[in-house]
Amino acid sequence: MSKTKNILFIMCDQLRADNLSCYGHPHISTPHIDALAAKGTRFTRAYVQAPVCGPSRMSYYTGRYTFSHGATWNFVPLPVGERTLGDYLRPTGMRVAVVGKTHHEPDVAGMNWLGLSSSQGPGKLIATGGFEEYWRDDGIHPDAKTPHDLAYNQYLRGHGFDGTNPWHDWANSGTDAQGKLASGWLLRNAHLPARLPDEFSETAYTVNRGMDFITEQGDAPWCLHLSFIKPHWPYIASPPYHNMFGREDCLAPVRSEEERSDKANPIFRGFQEHPESVSFSIDEVRLHMQPTYLGLVKQIDDHLGRLMVFLEKSGRLDDTLIVFTADHGDYQGDHWQGEKEFMYEQGVCVPMIVVDPDETAQRGVVSNALIEAVDMVPTFMDALGLDIPDHIIEGRSILPLLRGAQTSIREAAFSELDFAIYPTARKLGLKPNDARMVMCRTERWKLVHFGPGLPPQLFDLQEDPLELNDRGRDGGAIYKAARDDLYQCLLEWMRQRRNRMGMTNQAVSQRPSPAAAGGVTIGVW
Amino acid sequence: MSKTKNILFIMCDQLRADNLSCYGHPHISTPHIDALAAKGTRFTRAYVQAPVCGPSRMSYYTGRYTFSHGATWNFVPLPVGERTLGDYLRPTGMRVAVVGKTHHEPDVAGMNWLGLSSSQGPGKLIATGGFEEYWRDDGIHPDAKTPHDLAYNQYLRGHGFDGTNPWHDWANSGTDAQGKLASGWLLRNAHLPARLPDEFSETAYTVNRGMDFITEQGDAPWCLHLSFIKPHWPYIASPPYHNMFGREDCLAPVRSEEERSDKANPIFRGFQEHPESVSFSIDEVRLHMQPTYLGLVKQIDDHLGRLMVFLEKSGRLDDTLIVFTADHGDYQGDHWQGEKEFMYEQGVCVPMIVVDPDETAQRGVVSNALIEAVDMVPTFMDALGLDIPDHIIEGRSILPLLRGAQTSIREAAFSELDFAIYPTARKLGLKPNDARMVMCRTERWKLVHFGPGLPPQLFDLQEDPLELNDRGRDGGAIYKAARDDLYQCLLEWMRQRRNRMGMTNQAVSQRPSPAAAGGVTIGVW
Repeated sequence: MSKTKNILFIMCDQLRADNLSCYGHPHISTPHIDALAAKGTRFTRAYVQAPVCGPSRMSYYTGRYTFSHGATWNFVPLPVGERTLGDYLRPTGMRVAVVGKTHHEPDVAGMNWLGLSSSQGPGKLIATGGFEEYWRDDGIHPDAKTPHDLAYNQYLRGHGFDGTNPWHDWANSGTDAQGKLASGWLLRNAHLPARLPDEFSETAYTVNRGMDFITEQGDAPWCLHLSFIKPHWPYIASPPYHNMFGREDCLAPVRSEEERSDKANPIFRGFQEHPESVSFSIDEVRLHMQPTYLGLVKQIDDHLGRLMVFLEKSGRLDDTLIVFTADHGDYQGDHWQGEKEFMYEQGVCVPMIVVDPDETAQRGVVSNALIEAVDMVPTFMDALGLDIPDHIIEGRSILPLLRGAQTSIREAAFSELDFAIYPTARKLGLKPNDARMVMCRTERWKLVHFGPGLPPQLFDLQEDPLELNDRGRDGGAIYKAARDDLYQCLLEWMRQRRNRMGMTNQAVSQRPSPAAAGGVTIGVW
Repeated sequence: MSKTKNILFIMCDQLRADNLSCYGHPHISTPHIDALAAKGTRFTRAYVQAPVCGPSRMSYYTGRYTFSHGATWNFVPLPVGERTLGDYLRPTGMRVAVVGKTHHEPDVAGMNWLGLSSSQGPGKLIATGGFEEYWRDDGIHPDAKTPHDLAYNQYLRGHGFDGTNPWHDWANSGTDAQGKLASGWLLRNAHLPARLPDEFSETAYTVNRGMDFITEQGDAPWCLHLSFIKPHWPYIASPPYHNMFGREDCLAPVRSEEERSDKANPIFRGFQEHPESVSFSIDEVRLHMQPTYLGLVKQIDDHLGRLMVFLEKSGRLDDTLIVFTADHGDYQGDHWQGEKEFMYEQGVCVPMIVVDPDETAQRGVVSNALIEAVDMVPTFMDALGLDIPDHIIEGRSILPLLRGAQTSIREAAFSELDFAIYPTARKLGLKPNDARMVMCRTERWKLVHFGPGLPPQLFDLQEDPLELNDRGRDGGAIYKAARDDLYQCLLEWMRQRRNRMGMTNQAVSQRPSPAAAGGVTIGVW
């Protein structure tokens, strides 16, 4: 019997793995996250199923790949027939809640079709991606779209931070030299201190609300998705985090001139022309925001320290499985990209630390096993002793990796991006059903396929870990063989999408063969 | 404006195309089906999405491929989130009903999860695959599982055909030489006359009920799925159809000794060992059932003649789109196979005749265009002037083919078979998620892929239309090139599965690029 009674599923938004000290950053110290790594397993090859918030999170929550669950980009609803974490864990009597961000978009049309209400009955949880929204806040609140009753804004107003949108005016803005409000929406203001003390920041508030929930639960079992809004943009931090780091603390950009040349992959070149890529490729911009980004990471680490003390005092460290991860990375100018929407390691390979309270679990281990976001739901179920519905869930339990029973659970990891919305797709005339890039990453290789007639990207991660030498069109025998293998791997993966939701694999295995089913005879003389 | 106001969607179960005179059978005359062909377009390359009733029908009803909709074999529920024909057409005010067979299995677990009732509200239609069940009968009624209130049995009892299961005892049994009941479940009895006059047969009853429905509708628009139970087994026919044909009327089997040798594909060889394959490969068995099968086809044609007179008299021929097709074929010993579960033409290529009442439609045309079962839903929608939700529906409207505007709508047709339940898969140790065969058929070639480590089948349909020379392992350059092309074709098809149900392609196309969405700025200095 596993010791796991509760699950603390911590997610940061847009956190690059290499901005943590346990992942090797030379100038930031994240002792509390590092302490988790020391108590559990730190994965160096954990992949998200899409380098964009919404689809990545829906893969974390459903255990299914992006083009299986169908919420393929931000604000694309999760189809009403998709089951989530809450559907799997709640029947055990566990309370399943979110504090912070989910980016879940309800399938209103689907709910109307099935006559489901978002205010009562099963529809209530369908409308929230299966989570009880203890406190839900996606952290993106332009003035024009922010509801007056946003909980965090009400909280801020209660502490004297007034206005129609204190989220923006206090938590995500600074004051310029002329004493005017300087919006965090603009990167030029990233160096300014936010107009709010740290204790009222979104990060602090998230941890506070998380502790409220855990306290409220007492000894009753819970799964808490503690989902930080930061270090996602707007990039602006409360003091002292706003100037805790300087330009000298920033990592050198990973990029080459050849990547900008005609030799580079045309889709990749197209993405370099997107506004955010152009912006972050400018050193001045990058070096202006990165110190703040590091500050936001440090702030999360400090507040996680608070949380860990709380958990230790309450005894919850003994019976709680803890995951610390991110929904995707951030390029910050690497490979001439801004944001996260491509298949380079900075975008799709995320920090992933898992602490299993079980006695059999290893401590302080670093694992190079290929794992995926879709593995979280089955891991939680496995830790709780539940049968994993592997006719629906496409991920695998990583418990054997945590407990030293195996060193690998798969030969390849996959990620997908619906890029129909991006200028590059539109410029190339790719239609919505066609603008899908897909990555297959094995121990040695990474292939990114863009579609027929478009050259793939191929990287030899052994020889070229920085992914600067694209072998997608290289005629060398080794590269040709690698492409053949990886394409076969992609095909087999796609062949196995799991949409047979109505019948378990066990039921299929136990069914009698057709010619011998109850009372029916087929082809019998 | 199209003239289509109603849709008559006629399906036969297990009808091989080449058992109709318009498809070239030399010894049967099917004048009423041929008359439909003379009034419309007859397709020679219409493919079902699975050579098994349930999944094939769910593709017809959803417009989605087998492993997209997820009802991958008989009795596998159609997942609750899958929309069907009824969902698309009913909102226009059209009554959408079935008379006969659907083989739809409700997703009871999914309905319970969402709190849907099968007796009221939206769940009522979800429970029946979107059809109003005017008269639903799947036509497979072993004594032990037949409900006492089966409508057809009640009808028979009302006409003096008594017993607990008159479906079996009268409609699907004969009388042997000793005067004893001879069950149609056994092929040896196929030559006997059923114990029921033709006018009370399932086929006659199906047409009667269809006419009742159409009469009831008067001038109100309708979509009727008139779905014959026959010529599916039990193979036994009412007089005069039981002995209308003889052994001399049967087609010679299509098979070769090489197909049984070690040179043949191992999966294909495995299927040859299934009991029904062994049985139908025996000439005595085949020649005993085929005349009855032809009789059952002739019976359908005769009753369709009745229906056509009725439609003409009521004026419905002028405003009704008519489709005549089948859910899959029947091997009858061809390629040493029984039943239908493989990717040879006899199994997956079905009769398909479409009569479009529009003035612009062509008459008496034969089309070699590659079309698929998934094309039916979008064709119906197109004929009714509805927008096709092509972010969900994977088929395409064939209206341009019917009206001469195009001669092709796709370069390849696909079919899939979940063969986890068959002895061959179990013998090879293929797990449920892995036992999936997939076919890609282009103008010239057909590739059948079985999985990693298993040789594919490849047929050059131009040089080898009977599919007797498997080139799956042939090292010839032309075959190698064909395999490469077809595998790429498979990959592209799989890459485009349409599960983004919550957002239309049009909405995706019209969305602003990420860096410019309302009030949010990303990467702006």
